[in-house]
Amino acid sequence: MSSVTEFNSYREKMNEKILAEDNLVIKRFFNLDQHTYADGALSAKTKEMLGLVASLVLRCDDCVKYHLQQGKALGLNTEELFEILAVGNIVGGSICIPHTRRAVAFWEELSEENKSE
Amino acid sequence: MSSVTEFNSYREKMNEKILAEDNLVIKRFFNLDQHTYADGALSAKTKEMLGLVASLVLRCDDCVKYHLQQGKALGLNTEELFEILAVGNIVGGSICIPHTRRAVAFWEELSEENKSE
Amino acid sequence: MSSVTEFNSYREKMNEKILAEDNLVIKRFFNLDQHTYADGALSAKTKEMLGLVASLVLRCDDCVKYHLQQGKALGLNTEELFEILAVGNIVGGSICIPHTRRAVAFWEELSEENKSE
Amino acid sequence: MSSVTEFNSYREKMNEKILAEDNLVIKRFFNLDQHTYADGALSAKTKEMLGLVASLVLRCDDCVKYHLQQGKALGLNTEELFEILAVGNIVGGSICIPHTRRAVAFWEELSEENKSE
Amino acid sequence: MSSVTEFNSYREKMNEKILAEDNLVIKRFFNLDQHTYADGALSAKTKEMLGLVASLVLRCDDCVKYHLQQGKALGLNTEELFEILAVGNIVGGSICIPHTRRAVAFWEELSEENKSE
Amino acid sequence: MSSVTEFNSYREKMNEKILAEDNLVIKRFFNLDQHTYADGALSAKTKEMLGLVASLVLRCDDCVKYHLQQGKALGLNTEELFEILAVGNIVGGSICIPHTRRAVAFWEELSEENKSE
Repeated sequence: MSSVTEFNSYREKMNEKILAEDNLVIKRFFNLDQHTYADGALSAKTKEMLGLVASLVLRCDDCVKYHLQQGKALGLNTEELFEILAVGNIVGGSICIPHTRRAVAFWEELSEENKSE
Repeated sequence: MSSVTEFNSYREKMNEKILAEDNLVIKRFFNLDQHTYADGALSAKTKEMLGLVASLVLRCDDCVKYHLQQGKALGLNTEELFEILAVGNIVGGSICIPHTRRAVAFWEELSEENKSE
Repeated sequence: MSSVTEFNSYREKMNEKILAEDNLVIKRFFNLDQHTYADGALSAKTKEMLGLVASLVLRCDDCVKYHLQQGKALGLNTEELFEILAVGNIVGGSICIPHTRRAVAFWEELSEENKSE
Repeated sequence: MSSVTEFNSYREKMNEKILAEDNLVIKRFFNLDQHTYADGALSAKTKEMLGLVASLVLRCDDCVKYHLQQGKALGLNTEELFEILAVGNIVGGSICIPHTRRAVAFWEELSEENKSE
Repeated sequence: MSSVTEFNSYREKMNEKILAEDNLVIKRFFNLDQHTYADGALSAKTKEMLGLVASLVLRCDDCVKYHLQQGKALGLNTEELFEILAVGNIVGGSICIPHTRRAVAFWEELSEENKSE
Repeated sequence: MSSVTEFNSYREKMNEKILAEDNLVIKRFFNLDQHTYADGALSAKTKEMLGLVASLVLRCDDCVKYHLQQGKALGLNTEELFEILAVGNIVGGSICIPHTRRAVAFWEELSEENKSE
């Protein structure tokens, strides 16, 4: 199983379990989270870029992975990605570097998945 | 070895090594950390809930696991847990979601351990 | 104008301006934020304590002030408050001390307001 | 003196003092920081939006003010701003709300400055 | 009243109030905090430098002020200070810049106080 | 492959890939990051200690590992290390404890590598 598939299947499995508990606040928050990145005055792609840089400076690897995947599906390219990573590294400092490494490794895996499809 | 056992044995092994170095500040801090969650004006269970939500918003998976374990031993139930997770997610945002997934997975393992005892 | 009144009137004035912009995600999030602390499996008072310690370790003075006010209205007393502050300081470290000072100063002002009512 | 002018004059005065100390790493970092937001694969406006959301989730009021000012100069409008604030609040949680209030207050002052020019 | 005096008198006044509440965990933590920076394998001056950079990257202005004062009393000079600030800015990123400005402003005030003594 | 070797080879492989993308801001930042820890008014060893404590309180395991390695090469000993860890734990709180465990485990591996060379 590729690490992309592994990431997505764990994410889905656990989300299902969480939502099954029927906590109203959590259910609404998960729902709201998804609506946040819809097209509006800013495009969905721009919002995914915002979500990506916010996740990077807060150093949440899984959040970074999620937004990399969404961004790629919306046409984000490697040159744009690196400009986002640059903003994140300057704003958030060298502690973002290990997360940048893992982001680039996941980006590479996403690119290979796309090729083999 | 279950992930609960693995977590606890690594924790104990490393704590022993750390305390063996005889750094007075660290020894006192570890000691003080344990006293923090004792019964007082607030019950030990309430304090474990406070430690849990604080650990979640600071996104420390190992701290979350520790307080889940302590909370369970003190009678915390699943419905209460999800209300704590809800507060954590609202206060700390969607970057807490991956930690929430791992918390719920560990909670499940704790529950299975208890059954098989 | 007392600092409690000043805090609340700025908060209300700005919340109104923010909600007037009609951004659906923000409106729903503000709404959800309020529902988070309602009575459930855990009491509203317990949830305010959770919100307070989460705010302290994330070092958000205004959030701390808000939860102090809500907690006081729900019967939180000074001894309980200090046990929450203790958990926050141990979990979050000495960087929480300046926020603890400001929390205690605001708590004192809240207590004086109550007397003079 | 308006709070916008006050913010900018303090910023400039202190930057001058800092750069006058001739610490090479700091000088290069300040320089690099400015180059980060130049037009590239992504426009300067998009990069300012990225800097803004990163500053918001890291809860740096002065950084938020700076990027609001830069964004406004590059054509950022209020509807777009609120979508950025929405992403920041969802990713970073309710601890971002007090910073959102101050961001919106500063945005209002920036808008009034522009009118009176 | 200079801002140095104001900082110290607020700090002392609130510390007294906090310690007067007799919460054992908080009292021990405040006590332990002071012992942390005593001479040992590393000199007190080196430890103050460590406390300073840790406070800067965690962006705690009051903590930074405290360690600037302690560092100055132990012989920290301006060139050394700027090398610490450089490490902090690189590790913690551009969100540390506003805190660096305030640190340098406070350092200047400390230097003037010393002259006029 | 030891975990020290694994850490270093992943780090190098990914750094190469990142630098190969030719993003000027990232390249300069990586370069500046290396210059930050050079001998100056403060020794390289002192700067590595500053980088270490900053990484610990920001809870970046990979950054901690890197500075442990650099520190060891510059003569940092175990007693000094524990005083740095003590400062980090007091400043950053008990959420630093799991990172302290992993730091001490990596330190042990570094020490064993040195012996077997």
